[in-house]
Amino acid sequence: MKVIRDPIHGYIELDGLALSLIDTPQVQRLRRIKQLGFSNLVYPGANHTRFEHSLGVYHLAGHMVKQADEHQRKELLAAALLHDIGHGPFSHATEQIIERYTRKGHDDVEDLLKKGVISDVLREHSLSPSSIARHIRGETSYGPVINSEIDVDRMDYLVRDAHYTGVAFGLIDHVRLIHELTLNENKLVLNIGGLQAAESLLVSRFLMHPTVYFHHVSRIAESMCIHAAEYMIENEGLNPRSFQRMDDITFMIEMRNSRGYAAEIGKRLDERRLFKRALYTGFESLSMDVLKLSNNTRRVENEIAESAGISPEYVIVDIPDKPQIIEMKARVLINGKMIPVDRASSLVTALEKAQLDNWRLGVFTPAEHREKVGGIARDFFGVEKDTRQFKLTEI
Amino acid sequence: MKVIRDPIHGYIELDGLALSLIDTPQVQRLRRIKQLGFSNLVYPGANHTRFEHSLGVYHLAGHMVKQADEHQRKELLAAALLHDIGHGPFSHATEQIIERYTRKGHDDVEDLLKKGVISDVLREHSLSPSSIARHIRGETSYGPVINSEIDVDRMDYLVRDAHYTGVAFGLIDHVRLIHELTLNENKLVLNIGGLQAAESLLVSRFLMHPTVYFHHVSRIAESMCIHAAEYMIENEGLNPRSFQRMDDITFMIEMRNSRGYAAEIGKRLDERRLFKRALYTGFESLSMDVLKLSNNTRRVENEIAESAGISPEYVIVDIPDKPQIIEMKARVLINGKMIPVDRASSLVTALEKAQLDNWRLGVFTPAEHREKVGGIARDFFGVEKDTRQFKLTEI
Amino acid sequence: MKVIRDPIHGYIELDGLALSLIDTPQVQRLRRIKQLGFSNLVYPGANHTRFEHSLGVYHLAGHMVKQADEHQRKELLAAALLHDIGHGPFSHATEQIIERYTRKGHDDVEDLLKKGVISDVLREHSLSPSSIARHIRGETSYGPVINSEIDVDRMDYLVRDAHYTGVAFGLIDHVRLIHELTLNENKLVLNIGGLQAAESLLVSRFLMHPTVYFHHVSRIAESMCIHAAEYMIENEGLNPRSFQRMDDITFMIEMRNSRGYAAEIGKRLDERRLFKRALYTGFESLSMDVLKLSNNTRRVENEIAESAGISPEYVIVDIPDKPQIIEMKARVLINGKMIPVDRASSLVTALEKAQLDNWRLGVFTPAEHREKVGGIARDFFGVEKDTRQFKLTEI
Amino acid sequence: MKVIRDPIHGYIELDGLALSLIDTPQVQRLRRIKQLGFSNLVYPGANHTRFEHSLGVYHLAGHMVKQADEHQRKELLAAALLHDIGHGPFSHATEQIIERYTRKGHDDVEDLLKKGVISDVLREHSLSPSSIARHIRGETSYGPVINSEIDVDRMDYLVRDAHYTGVAFGLIDHVRLIHELTLNENKLVLNIGGLQAAESLLVSRFLMHPTVYFHHVSRIAESMCIHAAEYMIENEGLNPRSFQRMDDITFMIEMRNSRGYAAEIGKRLDERRLFKRALYTGFESLSMDVLKLSNNTRRVENEIAESAGISPEYVIVDIPDKPQIIEMKARVLINGKMIPVDRASSLVTALEKAQLDNWRLGVFTPAEHREKVGGIARDFFGVEKDTRQFKLTEI
Repeated sequence: MKVIRDPIHGYIELDGLALSLIDTPQVQRLRRIKQLGFSNLVYPGANHTRFEHSLGVYHLAGHMVKQADEHQRKELLAAALLHDIGHGPFSHATEQIIERYTRKGHDDVEDLLKKGVISDVLREHSLSPSSIARHIRGETSYGPVINSEIDVDRMDYLVRDAHYTGVAFGLIDHVRLIHELTLNENKLVLNIGGLQAAESLLVSRFLMHPTVYFHHVSRIAESMCIHAAEYMIENEGLNPRSFQRMDDITFMIEMRNSRGYAAEIGKRLDERRLFKRALYTGFESLSMDVLKLSNNTRRVENEIAESAGISPEYVIVDIPDKPQIIEMKARVLINGKMIPVDRASSLVTALEKAQLDNWRLGVFTPAEHREKVGGIARDFFGVEKDTRQFKLTEI
Repeated sequence: MKVIRDPIHGYIELDGLALSLIDTPQVQRLRRIKQLGFSNLVYPGANHTRFEHSLGVYHLAGHMVKQADEHQRKELLAAALLHDIGHGPFSHATEQIIERYTRKGHDDVEDLLKKGVISDVLREHSLSPSSIARHIRGETSYGPVINSEIDVDRMDYLVRDAHYTGVAFGLIDHVRLIHELTLNENKLVLNIGGLQAAESLLVSRFLMHPTVYFHHVSRIAESMCIHAAEYMIENEGLNPRSFQRMDDITFMIEMRNSRGYAAEIGKRLDERRLFKRALYTGFESLSMDVLKLSNNTRRVENEIAESAGISPEYVIVDIPDKPQIIEMKARVLINGKMIPVDRASSLVTALEKAQLDNWRLGVFTPAEHREKVGGIARDFFGVEKDTRQFKLTEI
Repeated sequence: MKVIRDPIHGYIELDGLALSLIDTPQVQRLRRIKQLGFSNLVYPGANHTRFEHSLGVYHLAGHMVKQADEHQRKELLAAALLHDIGHGPFSHATEQIIERYTRKGHDDVEDLLKKGVISDVLREHSLSPSSIARHIRGETSYGPVINSEIDVDRMDYLVRDAHYTGVAFGLIDHVRLIHELTLNENKLVLNIGGLQAAESLLVSRFLMHPTVYFHHVSRIAESMCIHAAEYMIENEGLNPRSFQRMDDITFMIEMRNSRGYAAEIGKRLDERRLFKRALYTGFESLSMDVLKLSNNTRRVENEIAESAGISPEYVIVDIPDKPQIIEMKARVLINGKMIPVDRASSLVTALEKAQLDNWRLGVFTPAEHREKVGGIARDFFGVEKDTRQFKLTEI
Repeated sequence: MKVIRDPIHGYIELDGLALSLIDTPQVQRLRRIKQLGFSNLVYPGANHTRFEHSLGVYHLAGHMVKQADEHQRKELLAAALLHDIGHGPFSHATEQIIERYTRKGHDDVEDLLKKGVISDVLREHSLSPSSIARHIRGETSYGPVINSEIDVDRMDYLVRDAHYTGVAFGLIDHVRLIHELTLNENKLVLNIGGLQAAESLLVSRFLMHPTVYFHHVSRIAESMCIHAAEYMIENEGLNPRSFQRMDDITFMIEMRNSRGYAAEIGKRLDERRLFKRALYTGFESLSMDVLKLSNNTRRVENEIAESAGISPEYVIVDIPDKPQIIEMKARVLINGKMIPVDRASSLVTALEKAQLDNWRLGVFTPAEHREKVGGIARDFFGVEKDTRQFKLTEI
């Protein structure tokens, strides 16, 4: 039993199994995957990694499965520690492109668990890679602890991201949440006494979205990174599966060492010379259903670039998914009845609607093309006026 | 210029005027008025006072009126420091009864400013008591800084109350709020860049309400205190104006030293042997419009007590006002237009509705009458079932 | 099992025994005993009470006695909760005078445990008042947990006092300290891995002494309060044992309601019109051994007052005991050997000497006599020049 | 004027000059230089960078030079922002080796200021690179603000490093320190009112040293990194000046891409398979004056390796400099006289001695050679027994 110091949870205790898993190259690699991708370009403190987040999730999961039997407990804790090993460089930034080329999401890790040192460690402790993979996908009876509407993953990252960015949201009462959550027929159920703590978590998440997770500067940097990766996959023989296994620094260096477009993007990211917003607008200014285009943004980019007379790599169209609050499917136990959390709480219902306000379509391009591309994009999407909002300063 | 250490704002600088005002008996008395009345019966840390809160409001106001001219600045800062001298013992707990008997609210302090040492200090600094009183009521051009929808009063107390109760809400980004608020035609106007900070403040307040400000245990203790004061005014010759000028400890001792009912209530408060909830229910279970009764609860108490065959002092009916979020009247500046904050933010609109969920009618009585009184009250109000919710443990 | 929210430790869990003890008038009285006496006259946030501190000590003790058998565990936890019930009004402020008249220190509580509701509760749980009293005095095998060199009492109050005063010391790593402390032959022994956490605790205490615990303003207010109590005992028939059982507010009102000197002191404390320092000096400026006089300050006060031609109640001579760091007797386990902590740590040795720098002799008198009394006192003690140091501003 | 969010100081305001300097590749590079080198191998949260530290130093310096004239103020603030651009990869880890090969310390940056984009920005604002370089070395009248005994550099890094490692020291009262520090004849002078805040800063630093800055795990990783760099300079043509300009990620990849020894070290650092302590001991166990050997550790390494029959690259001898507290040269103003801080404070004197306890000689080698190398090293240095102390767990 060893302990490790964590700025969020104080001391985290690690048993033999955890120590062996941590010592694998796959988990050590998470030390070099930033939790928030390029958010450090906005919040200079946001350099924290998937490694410490994984320790935090392990720690909180340990508090939630005290009643489980020894074997299930072990499996679930292994799953907590390993739940993010499927992330590619810069975490969520590259998730979409990896999924497009490999058909695997970041929580689809069964193949990773069956290979290399991790597979040896699991075998030694008589743990099944398939079970752990199912825990990670939230498909087992204990899975919802680490992958569900109100799971320890969120409880950790909201507080952790607030600590490192320095934003003034993100107080989560996880002691109370963990105390009031129980498993019932493979679902996490919240006792009424925890409803307010859950509301508070959902509000934190709601406020973190536009301020941190969807801040336009990190969104632009991520889009640039994705476009560079795509370019390297299609033109320079980058293997999508190798790409997924890279850490942040390997991919940064790969970009720098490549030629042409990807090298330029790498240099721009290094020196924080980012594309700018040519268009940035919410649903209310859009006269067409842009969500339909989200699977084919490249066609849109090509069309706008052609009209503007520039190379298509220099127009990035970013159409985020329509926001959902999946936590709303959680159920609350009131007077013996199970009630969906959004029926039990008017606040939660409200958040579902309110978050649509924060959605933004973005068209990004180098500063020198901003005006031209902006005008064309505006025509293309039928936008009347710009609702550009500066939530935080660009540095 | 002196400095004083404050757990919330660090060092607070005080100039000569502030020091002279602080030295008056009226401001020193605030050291003995608890900010949250009887909330320390639920949250043992909640012993903070109106004195330190007044210093905090003074400190924040100083940041907001840097542009004002010297004289206005002085007046407003005096108003900030003095804004709570009209509070009676236990702050809001006794506000309603003082208002009933004296026809004065806690922010109606002109007469207090024209008397005693404070009046001397103001005269020495050529400041007008009437202007200061109008600032305190929010009726001047700078008044909204300390008394309006999003004022420094709230910015201080939300953070302060969270610090002392230990609840996990109450992070307010007052640096940003103060930076984004401007005065425009005697109204505080919020720039769009501060909208999220304002949403966060409103959410904090929303979450603090049921957890702290309307926690049933402090609500019961307050109701008991009010009933004792009423009894002493009507039966023992307590003068309502003297009552208003008392500090907490004087009134506690007055109760202990009185006879009969008030003495018993004093002893019960000392030993935390409180009345219990015979009925505790929200709007959804009420078939009648109870808000109409809120001005005549004594008649209801008498009726229930008579049916139960007990003395009417042992039945307390608590019908809080229908909640309002007055901050919603604040206006946000978006693209040069002034828009009410609840139209600019779906979240704010939502809070207005959601807070109705937290309203509770309560009927309180000693433990031994709980069952009987509960049944009668339930019939009286036409309640079908109880929605008693235990948000936090009673100690 | 109930939980209560504490700003320092988060949630504190209370079992049936703890709840019954908390419900006694003796423990509820601690809600009205300020932890730091009159320190709130310097630090407006310092209104916290012995009640919440007792809960904190109970909480930490619970973590340290997990291995004890059920009965011993129960006894020790009761002792933790009750360890401060012997304090008189304003805690340490009145300790000395109570000891002088009653011959009982604040941790000499056996008689209190054998009376009233507490004694009933203990009997119901088959716990012995005598054993608990010995735990509180630190005389049992588990006693050192709550009363010894490095005990949970200190771990709680240092952090708590820092939280409420807002001073920037007082980070104690109690998780590590508790983890590294073990009981060995009835002594607490610290493993080498906890040495640094212990050094840090000792430094916190060292820095808190002059800044908070011995700040001259609270020291003056305490001295005034003691002199008023003495006056009331000797001239107005105040019973020392009744005095000990009072809470802060009762004694404040007793002073206000008394006549002459005590009433004046009461009014001065209410309005913060304190005596001033006529002399304030450290060892290095004193040519005589003043510590010898500490048992007979009244004679010195009389002599100085007579020379100054004023009534002796208006001269207060304050000669604190020579500081000791009793924690230094703690032992550290290094390579199997027990070594006193001050031999294991040069820092601890250093603190022992350094704290002598912070000792101050004070002579206090109303502002109008300051100069005259100052001159006479200076001659009396053979002081050459004044080393008055303003560590924090007086408000 | 823009603002940026910092977890330590809240909002940091940046003017046009600061924004232009931040936009240079030299400052952007600091985003990829970890503040604490390899400390994240012990404290997973310690991923913070020289970039955010530089912003913090700029922020605090701004508070200290409010009285300076406009031009001096500009120069000093530029110096604050640029003071760390001379650091090589992994900050202090590589400082010694860079100094050995380039004869330049990390604060010797005049040549860097006279080249590239920075030089253009400075010229536009009519600022002299030479003056700024002298400020950075602390050689000007305002230089001590950023480079002296008690400077804003330390005030920032102590708090920042505590925030990210999560250790329980590091509360610095910089508001008070800055308020009490004045410049007097080109020296920073501390008013007596700031003495305690300075003591507290020195204690923080004292406690941070063994816990964080000299933790054996980061010390081992740093030593390994240095040996790899040395190997690459001597055997693979790595240019020392290019090395100095690299960021962390470039050098990590250079190691991975090199051959033989350096590649192995790179892989070991990636997977956290570090050398182990074969010998780890303080002054008290050493019978010879090892400090004399500190300039020639390679000879010692060769000798030990030869005796052990292993390649000399696998023996690392680490002899840190004898600790000094340079802050002790600071002077305190007491009653008009300037007194060195270690004469004004017994605590400071004590720290000077106590810190010798924390010094450690280390001999590091791969796990498989640990025993053999340990025995030989023990004989070589005449050590009797090992005082290995585990302050924090290795992960």
